[in-house]
Amino acid sequence: MKRRDFLKKAGVAAAGAAFSPLMFANAQASTFRFGMVTSWPTSLDTIFGGALNTAKFLNEVTQGDVEVEVYPAGAQVGGLEVYDAVSSGAFEMGHTASYYYVGKDPAHAYFTSLPFGMNAQQHNAWMLSGGGQDLWNELNAPDNLIAFPAGNTGTQMGGWFNKEINSADDLQGLTMRIPGLGGQVMSRAGANVQVLPGGEIFLALERGTIDATEWVGPYDDQILGFNQVARFYYSPGWHEPGPALGAYMNLDVYNDLPEDIQNAFQTAASAANVKMLADYDARNGKALAEILAGGNVELRTFPEEYLNTLEGFANEIFAEATNSSTMFARTWGPWTSFRDDVRGFHAISEKAWLDYSID
Amino acid sequence: MKRRDFLKKAGVAAAGAAFSPLMFANAQASTFRFGMVTSWPTSLDTIFGGALNTAKFLNEVTQGDVEVEVYPAGAQVGGLEVYDAVSSGAFEMGHTASYYYVGKDPAHAYFTSLPFGMNAQQHNAWMLSGGGQDLWNELNAPDNLIAFPAGNTGTQMGGWFNKEINSADDLQGLTMRIPGLGGQVMSRAGANVQVLPGGEIFLALERGTIDATEWVGPYDDQILGFNQVARFYYSPGWHEPGPALGAYMNLDVYNDLPEDIQNAFQTAASAANVKMLADYDARNGKALAEILAGGNVELRTFPEEYLNTLEGFANEIFAEATNSSTMFARTWGPWTSFRDDVRGFHAISEKAWLDYSID
Repeated sequence: MKRRDFLKKAGVAAAGAAFSPLMFANAQASTFRFGMVTSWPTSLDTIFGGALNTAKFLNEVTQGDVEVEVYPAGAQVGGLEVYDAVSSGAFEMGHTASYYYVGKDPAHAYFTSLPFGMNAQQHNAWMLSGGGQDLWNELNAPDNLIAFPAGNTGTQMGGWFNKEINSADDLQGLTMRIPGLGGQVMSRAGANVQVLPGGEIFLALERGTIDATEWVGPYDDQILGFNQVARFYYSPGWHEPGPALGAYMNLDVYNDLPEDIQNAFQTAASAANVKMLADYDARNGKALAEILAGGNVELRTFPEEYLNTLEGFANEIFAEATNSSTMFARTWGPWTSFRDDVRGFHAISEKAWLDYSID
Repeated sequence: MKRRDFLKKAGVAAAGAAFSPLMFANAQASTFRFGMVTSWPTSLDTIFGGALNTAKFLNEVTQGDVEVEVYPAGAQVGGLEVYDAVSSGAFEMGHTASYYYVGKDPAHAYFTSLPFGMNAQQHNAWMLSGGGQDLWNELNAPDNLIAFPAGNTGTQMGGWFNKEINSADDLQGLTMRIPGLGGQVMSRAGANVQVLPGGEIFLALERGTIDATEWVGPYDDQILGFNQVARFYYSPGWHEPGPALGAYMNLDVYNDLPEDIQNAFQTAASAANVKMLADYDARNGKALAEILAGGNVELRTFPEEYLNTLEGFANEIFAEATNSSTMFARTWGPWTSFRDDVRGFHAISEKAWLDYSID
């Protein structure tokens, strides 16, 4: 439907939560005015940038028909309350990580990143071309939500620790910030697990209320200052090898949109998706070099046996989730089948190339 | 500028080459009607799909303001004549691989994939967040063109051969279809090199006018039937580790567009970019399994020493291109610096993860 027809037919303008009028100087020209709550502080400009880019691209491509005001974590709702705030309709849109909400259903973990799962390229393939999006829709619809991939950090670092990690025994009694099923793995391995939004981690680490944390990678971790308060920096990020962020919309709001605006939302999210991964890749290399040049940080790789132990715990958790969650069980077969196929091809393509090109 | 203002101000409707009226049933509703010539046969639905998706997304997000008719290779111009056809204004848009045009300037190679260069994720990072797009703009502008990344095949296979390749000596006198600077590397190694569009390779291979070819990877190669006429299937694709396809537009046409339609073009291209890579990754695994199950094809990995030899030739070619092309020389420093940074980070992130997760 063309915008003019829709305007004629529908009357218009989605109601909204309390907006700052100053940020809508041009609002009279816009048909749809949406508020987007996010899980990110503005200081983390790459991941918060994923929310801003989704809003910006959607505004641009619709020639101003959709205007989105983006709120950082805490401005309207807490960083981990985004899902509920969009589900209830208090806000039309959100930008968050689905795995923050595994307490509602463990199946939410698939749509950020499963521990020991797929990397960003593989996850995008599953979501965009392998049936993943349909399963995400099925999971979100009962909560009156729809979401599309709108950012990815790439393979993360494994985290910051105040001591060396040589085996899972070293995790006994360690308090670590790590969300999602990765956190459940660490808990099973003996760690005390906390989930904190990005903006609250530094103080907890500095004050010693946590001994370890993961966030994203060198660029963000440097902004958050972890290199000033933790010594051992581990890779790789087994707990989220290619975590995707999601652009959420309240499903009633979405269903009331003309189809071309619905499609524009998905296209804008896709463009923000590839842009965030590009931003992280463009920024992490320099940040890593700076962190190491600081001299206080020691880079480490998790021992393979340690990873094997954690993968064993992960498989236990997956098996239990298959029993406890219908959607986890429904998604497991298609997800593992896709993962195995794409790994089989990447073994001789992407991995073979990295093996040759990176020493 | 809003569409209605632009309509008022500018009158309307870009002229076009001869269109099929049947394909523009809805044309009266569209402000801009563009023809897009491509380098792809319709049978290669993933790469031709990149052109179709760019057109579809652009049409959708502009709520029908831009209508693009997409032509396969040969329908209007030959598969390797896309650049000239859009440069001259005969067609408004094109979808092709920039490295087909290294004869005009070797710098075009950077924007598909340099031999021994970056993979898809690294290339996207350079283009979208590392300054690559500005350099591409600089290269294309004198030919009255602008282009954005609009597809990527991922790390390709190394190609099909009618004999085993154990060292560069085995290339003496071998006739191979391989374009771009990768073709120049093979030529220097002693091969006879041909450049043929995708739709013409099978017959040449079947008739023995070529002994070897590369194209993309299992899914496309199976469609083209290479597994029926060649025995040895090599990886990895050192000649194009992450080749990007480009959505081109005539620069005069582009400059006459309202800014929001210009942005919509770039956003649509970005969405088509991530979608094509997802499609290839979702399809290549199954196709590879089918090809190998056929029993006539032997999968091989190029020996490391062979790759080292070819990389030496590639470095000679890069040095010569630096002397012969101002744009190749201008791009070399930023490109290598970015490549080294991103490889440094990927060594401990993406590669470390693939090392653990893929045997």
